[in-house]
Amino acid sequence: MQAVSIGWIGTGVMGNAMCGHLIDAGHTVYVYNRTRDKAGNLMERGARWCPSPKTVAESAEVIFSIVGYPSDVQEVILSAEGALAGAKTGAVIVDMSTSSPDLARRIHERAHQKGVAALDAPVSGGDIGAREATLAIMVGGDLAAYDRVLPLFNSMGRHIAYMGGPGAGQHTKMCNQILIAGTMIGVVESLLYAHRAGMAQHAIIDVIGQGAASSWAINHIGRRIADGNFDPGFFVKHFVKDMGIALDEARRMNLSLPGLALVNQFYVAAMAQGEENLGTQALYRVLNRLNRPTA
Amino acid sequence: MQAVSIGWIGTGVMGNAMCGHLIDAGHTVYVYNRTRDKAGNLMERGARWCPSPKTVAESAEVIFSIVGYPSDVQEVILSAEGALAGAKTGAVIVDMSTSSPDLARRIHERAHQKGVAALDAPVSGGDIGAREATLAIMVGGDLAAYDRVLPLFNSMGRHIAYMGGPGAGQHTKMCNQILIAGTMIGVVESLLYAHRAGMAQHAIIDVIGQGAASSWAINHIGRRIADGNFDPGFFVKHFVKDMGIALDEARRMNLSLPGLALVNQFYVAAMAQGEENLGTQALYRVLNRLNRPTA
Repeated sequence: MQAVSIGWIGTGVMGNAMCGHLIDAGHTVYVYNRTRDKAGNLMERGARWCPSPKTVAESAEVIFSIVGYPSDVQEVILSAEGALAGAKTGAVIVDMSTSSPDLARRIHERAHQKGVAALDAPVSGGDIGAREATLAIMVGGDLAAYDRVLPLFNSMGRHIAYMGGPGAGQHTKMCNQILIAGTMIGVVESLLYAHRAGMAQHAIIDVIGQGAASSWAINHIGRRIADGNFDPGFFVKHFVKDMGIALDEARRMNLSLPGLALVNQFYVAAMAQGEENLGTQALYRVLNRLNRPTA
Repeated sequence: MQAVSIGWIGTGVMGNAMCGHLIDAGHTVYVYNRTRDKAGNLMERGARWCPSPKTVAESAEVIFSIVGYPSDVQEVILSAEGALAGAKTGAVIVDMSTSSPDLARRIHERAHQKGVAALDAPVSGGDIGAREATLAIMVGGDLAAYDRVLPLFNSMGRHIAYMGGPGAGQHTKMCNQILIAGTMIGVVESLLYAHRAGMAQHAIIDVIGQGAASSWAINHIGRRIADGNFDPGFFVKHFVKDMGIALDEARRMNLSLPGLALVNQFYVAAMAQGEENLGTQALYRVLNRLNRPTA
């Protein structure tokens, strides 16, 4: 494909690896990150530093952002020093953060008024997917803009899906996270029951990890629980952020999701108990403590 | 294998198909069912009718039961006219109902006192698995008895697992059902969110049915929900029975399982709303009604 002038905002674990693939593909990349040091390796590979999201956007045809919270998305895109302030007519802004569908729609509207296209394109697949360019990317926004950016998505991921208008990418990611929340409480309570009943958790997973109860979570996260491994694949603190967005958006739609609300509360307890930097399997520890005599 | 004198108690949808495989394998089968008519097809194929579980057991080396509730199991095995009263020294009683681990242990103790072995061996795989002899069978009890019965299990299922002492088969089944309960609330809330957000549920499943959120349930039960198909694969009323057993057993172990308890309540609501004979995907209807304006 033709080389494109690309802006990249946010060079954390995910963004750094994803941006690297675009450099490797021969594009010109302008980069900004709140902490400049974290973009150092990308600059060594040819990325050019810009002092703000706005200046990143001034030089780019397609501007990507992948930052933390919706408030960060709002700042790097919509503030006076944000990408939209610098974006040229005809540019595309692609937010790949997991963020609020409502904010995605607002960005689209504000961008549209300036003759700029906007896509919401959150990902799943974690740091490994980012490194190996095997991410799933769920995209919302105008189809024409999607078609323009698709070759760039293909450099970063393997399963690219156009899901509909503005916000549809974020909505899809929310569906994914709601599904994970329910599955996780099933995994954790099942293994807690197994342990209490005196059963070997790995032997239980061998059986229930097949057939009608099977899931990626029981066979991967469940195994880690059985091994006593609570290291992060996906951080508790990030999952709490995502569930918060889903619950906010559901509230906005007058939609009660009692299962998600319950699971969210236990993850909030994991945060309260200082386990925000463990993996999502820390839910097991929360429910285990709930069921233990206090000192 | 050598032909065995087999007793079979319970010829509902599951038991009828399972018993048929043993007839096909050339064994002599003595059969009892509360409703005699439902054993008619088996008698046409050579099974001999007995007027009670006790008389079934008097003629058999291995006695199988697959009935409804733990109270039914107790009656067909432990009552005065039950299988144990008729069983000869050296016989094996195999309860394949999904029933209480605690009851399985009591049956084992009572049988042991009479020189009779007992196995608890609940199954999963549904009516299709029973018909096609592809059931998963989770077995608890003495290993020696398991080894004796294994060739018969192999006529009925494909994934046979010895899980440990008395009750271990039922415990494994409970782990399976607890896992399904959590996964189902995730499936249902995810698809409800999708619908409310204006997304096509099938398109959402195409994406979230892969990767870290994936499960058998989203890809099979989720598809039925998206199709508006609430026909039973697995009945609401049977799942409510199973969850009740799991919650009872958890209570016995002083184990709080808040996710299971919540999901169970919504399935109880499905019962209250007259949907006990729909499939477990009726949970979607319960949560959908929860979120609709009342008339």
